[in-house]
Amino acid sequence: MAKRIITVGRECGSGGHTIGKLVAQRLGISFYDKEIVEMVAAKTKLSPDFIAAHGEYFQNGSLGHIFGYGGRFASTMRTQSSLQDQMHFVQTELIREIAEKESCVIVGRCADYILQERTDVLNVFIHSAMPYKVERSIREHGLEEDKAASILTKRDKARSHHYNFYTNQTWGMAKYYHLALDSGLLGEEKCVELICLAYQV
Amino acid sequence: MAKRIITVGRECGSGGHTIGKLVAQRLGISFYDKEIVEMVAAKTKLSPDFIAAHGEYFQNGSLGHIFGYGGRFASTMRTQSSLQDQMHFVQTELIREIAEKESCVIVGRCADYILQERTDVLNVFIHSAMPYKVERSIREHGLEEDKAASILTKRDKARSHHYNFYTNQTWGMAKYYHLALDSGLLGEEKCVELICLAYQV
Repeated sequence: MAKRIITVGRECGSGGHTIGKLVAQRLGISFYDKEIVEMVAAKTKLSPDFIAAHGEYFQNGSLGHIFGYGGRFASTMRTQSSLQDQMHFVQTELIREIAEKESCVIVGRCADYILQERTDVLNVFIHSAMPYKVERSIREHGLEEDKAASILTKRDKARSHHYNFYTNQTWGMAKYYHLALDSGLLGEEKCVELICLAYQV
Repeated sequence: MAKRIITVGRECGSGGHTIGKLVAQRLGISFYDKEIVEMVAAKTKLSPDFIAAHGEYFQNGSLGHIFGYGGRFASTMRTQSSLQDQMHFVQTELIREIAEKESCVIVGRCADYILQERTDVLNVFIHSAMPYKVERSIREHGLEEDKAASILTKRDKARSHHYNFYTNQTWGMAKYYHLALDSGLLGEEKCVELICLAYQV
């Protein structure tokens, strides 16, 4: 059975975005990552900046700063939680619509879990050791050398909290993905090759 | 850099043994799984049956039955622990010797962790959903239909306890393997193909 949709979960700095994009190009199918931010913004009153910052990063009790409250009041906490949920539900609906419409690669945003009822999805997870992620993040995104590891760890923590909260699964556990790859050891090109080969089931 | 050694961690019933064997045949390299049992037996006073039953299954406080004590006494517990440790240390030494000697596939037994200092190892993990594992275990190993899922779950629990205890890592977590594959979705042949392709880094 030919797979039509590829979801890509990834550790921050592992190159999952780039690998997903190259796979989409190689297979001639659509690619969704930050594209989803604008689409969610169009469907809600939330700003693209807020969606980008919190669309797949669960920062429990830390959303208050966007309202200037510092997350200190219970009412603010409820608003934050409700905004996070609202965004997640809109995102979920959108990912289902995209999957229904066309073959594509979707990066992050619990897409593997959201599409779990479908039988035409290949779920991929990309990870790598910290030295590779640090080196890549300095080179590709200009992160400062002495802060890179701490930034990457913090973002992955928020990403895994978001995933675990909305899926009741464990982010990065092999059994939740059909294919998990170490991009540091294998290299980007080999990862693209392996995903394209697995796609042809 | 060409990889020389492949370690294969696997969920019980996922076909990891078969996939590892097919990979070794395809690459023309040696294969070690139950072969290790006889080799450990030759180096210790432990019986092959004991090694097969406990060599990669950590059954805390449940080894007493081989001495007829039922694991009820503290002195017996210490003996069990010491036997388990002795076996693990001999197995560790043996796996290092094998890896030093030749290109090969080594199944289970924390080989990925034991060989972590080497740079010529590809660590693979094979898993699949329970219905596939149950169907396969009935077909291949004659497990009874109504008991299969419970047996597989119990064995994997003992396997993961053993791995987590001796490695301080988490069995089945994607980040500890270079390549993790769902054999149920991908099929045995595709898994063999993907591992062989990844091996050619």
